[in-house]
Amino acid sequence: MSDKRPVVIDLRFARESVVSALRSAFPDRPVIDMGDPVSADRDLSEAEFAVVWKPDPELFRRATGLKAIFSGGAGVDHILSAYELPDLPIIRFVDRSLTDRMSEWVVWQCLHHLRNGIAYASQQRDRVWHEIAEQPEARDVTVGVMGLGVLGTDAVRKLKVMGFDVIGWSRRAKSIEGIKTFDAATLDAFLGQTDILVGLLPLTGDTRGIYDRALFSKLRRTGPLGGPIFLNAGRGGSQKENELTKCLADGTLNAASLDVFEKEPLPADSPLWTMPNVIVTPHAAAASDVRALFRHVEAQIARVEAGKALEFVVDRTSGY
Amino acid sequence: MSDKRPVVIDLRFARESVVSALRSAFPDRPVIDMGDPVSADRDLSEAEFAVVWKPDPELFRRATGLKAIFSGGAGVDHILSAYELPDLPIIRFVDRSLTDRMSEWVVWQCLHHLRNGIAYASQQRDRVWHEIAEQPEARDVTVGVMGLGVLGTDAVRKLKVMGFDVIGWSRRAKSIEGIKTFDAATLDAFLGQTDILVGLLPLTGDTRGIYDRALFSKLRRTGPLGGPIFLNAGRGGSQKENELTKCLADGTLNAASLDVFEKEPLPADSPLWTMPNVIVTPHAAAASDVRALFRHVEAQIARVEAGKALEFVVDRTSGY
Ligand SMILES: NC(=O)c1ccc[n+]([C@@H]2O[C@H](COP(=O)([O-])OP(=O)(O)OC[C@H]3O[C@@H](n4cnc5c(N)ncnc54)[C@H](OP(=O)(O)O)[C@@H]3O)[C@@H](O)[C@H]2O)c1
Ligand SMILES: NC(=O)c1ccc[n+]([C@@H]2O[C@H](COP(=O)([O-])OP(=O)(O)OC[C@H]3O[C@@H](n4cnc5c(N)ncnc54)[C@H](OP(=O)(O)O)[C@@H]3O)[C@@H](O)[C@H]2O)c1
Repeated sequence: MSDKRPVVIDLRFARESVVSALRSAFPDRPVIDMGDPVSADRDLSEAEFAVVWKPDPELFRRATGLKAIFSGGAGVDHILSAYELPDLPIIRFVDRSLTDRMSEWVVWQCLHHLRNGIAYASQQRDRVWHEIAEQPEARDVTVGVMGLGVLGTDAVRKLKVMGFDVIGWSRRAKSIEGIKTFDAATLDAFLGQTDILVGLLPLTGDTRGIYDRALFSKLRRTGPLGGPIFLNAGRGGSQKENELTKCLADGTLNAASLDVFEKEPLPADSPLWTMPNVIVTPHAAAASDVRALFRHVEAQIARVEAGKALEFVVDRTSGY
Repeated sequence: MSDKRPVVIDLRFARESVVSALRSAFPDRPVIDMGDPVSADRDLSEAEFAVVWKPDPELFRRATGLKAIFSGGAGVDHILSAYELPDLPIIRFVDRSLTDRMSEWVVWQCLHHLRNGIAYASQQRDRVWHEIAEQPEARDVTVGVMGLGVLGTDAVRKLKVMGFDVIGWSRRAKSIEGIKTFDAATLDAFLGQTDILVGLLPLTGDTRGIYDRALFSKLRRTGPLGGPIFLNAGRGGSQKENELTKCLADGTLNAASLDVFEKEPLPADSPLWTMPNVIVTPHAAAASDVRALFRHVEAQIARVEAGKALEFVVDRTSGY
């Protein structure tokens, strides 16, 4: 083996995907895989880096020699909010594959609502052949994306290619070609022009519960879809699920596609499962590809060893 | 009024859309609207142009002075095959809106199959929270588009932006950037590389019944979707529906999205309505926007009056 210090892995992902990806990862350094029972009582004080997704809270007390913590996903709320973290750089997972997958989900669901996917599925069940009149085309519909980070930026570009009118909102003003952008100060103007709202925000103190009745009530009601539609693939903690459910029932929202929920798995008694105007996917919009994750971690470790700065370091003050 | 000769309209579209579009169309020339009962016995011998979709077969016998016939849709099989037509130019409907709508449908359905839309909808009905393992991404999947005309060319470009590996097939060899293309002589090679087959062919003598068991059996079976998928938004006459249905039942095909059928409306007793792996839409992939249709006809008539050649004239020999 090498004289390098270990990397410790604590990823609550499908076990098989971790085991298989580890076979070819970190060839020049010892790996401590916490998913393997033999690691349970191991001394972790030597570990230099940790790669984690919802890790054992004990990990950070035991791994006292860490230099950096890598999140197994794009979001870091799973560790920032739940642990007393050492004062170390935390690195988000940023990867082409993750980004492409998220845009697939977003474009898929926007098209599904644009093209009356729910209504046509219901007609098919009833063997009804009926072309829904007044089919708007993408350019008639404004998609407003909240969060113009790595994921939002790619999603708006692809939505635009599909013909949608696209606008975007982020904390700090952004300039993206062909897309009207809004910042924190102009949220209401953004909402008032939005027919399909797409949530791609990280979960932070500022974004917790941001999707509530007050916000949904500000969306455009005069658009060609007959009422606003809400998509969330950021974090469930950003939606007030109780108010969301009521808005879907009383017509404040026409429909929703939800990949994330306040509580996951979504409890069996949640009304969202069976509302006819709701699409549920089980936090599957953009799963981390574990091989790609390890490649990203290896690349960042190589930067450290070459004396370069880490990339994608989380700003602990803003929380993402 | 003007001294121009009339345009006769016989469009079996939703009546309201025709009436409303006619309000602002053809401002400088008389219009004979065959959908209006008062037109029933009118003398049509003066009419110079006809705009038709599944017209009354009598029309071409009565309108003896026509200079050109405009199809109300992109396809012309509805008149070529069903009528004894005078020897006049037949002009297809080509329009940005029609093209964009078709690409919406194609990308929507490709993403729906890529992202397990059918399985997730079924899990939702059962309140099952389960992330489907081994989710391929678009680049892992090859979409093969049959028909690289106005519609196919736009669809392959947008599928490519969404990340899919895209290949295409047409009668005559084509060159499209970033896309491997095949011609009539290399159909089998094209099929052997295709995971999702998208039909965007016109219905002609050569393409009638082209989608049959023999063809489906040549599609790639080793792709990441577990078996080939068939989409058809060209014409139902191109599919042997009996063989298609059997292929969907016996696993030769994994799934299908069908917008067109041998007989439309799809008969209530067709097994396609209820097969769990089939998505049915009622010939709604790309409805002609009647306003856009009349604008296109006006533009072509203006060309004739300016002594220019008509565009989009159908080749009666090849049938499209
Ligand atoms: N469902 C899934 O499968 C899945 C998969 C991956 C990721 N995600 C979620 O998607 C989130 C976004 O990922 P990303 O990579 O795009 O993150 P990112 O690059 O950090 O971008 C975050 C964006 O949100 C904006 N933002 C943050 N706080 C805000 C606030 N209070 N007000 C307004 N805008 C705010 C940021 O504004 P600035 O540009 O001004 O900083 C930025 O544009 C992740 O945090 C994760 O929770 C979900
Ligand atoms: N479902 C709907 O709502 C809907 C709406 C609009 C249109 N459509 C259908 O879509 C069809 C295509 O429209 P389009 O505007 O793209 O037509 P197009 O521009 O005429 O293109 C037809 C394409 O099919 C190819 N092709 C024709 N016969 C072939 C054969 N025997 N073998 C191989 N390739 C052949 C042509 O090859 P070449 O390039 O070599 O000529 C061309 O690439 C229409 O005819 C219509 O039936 C359906």
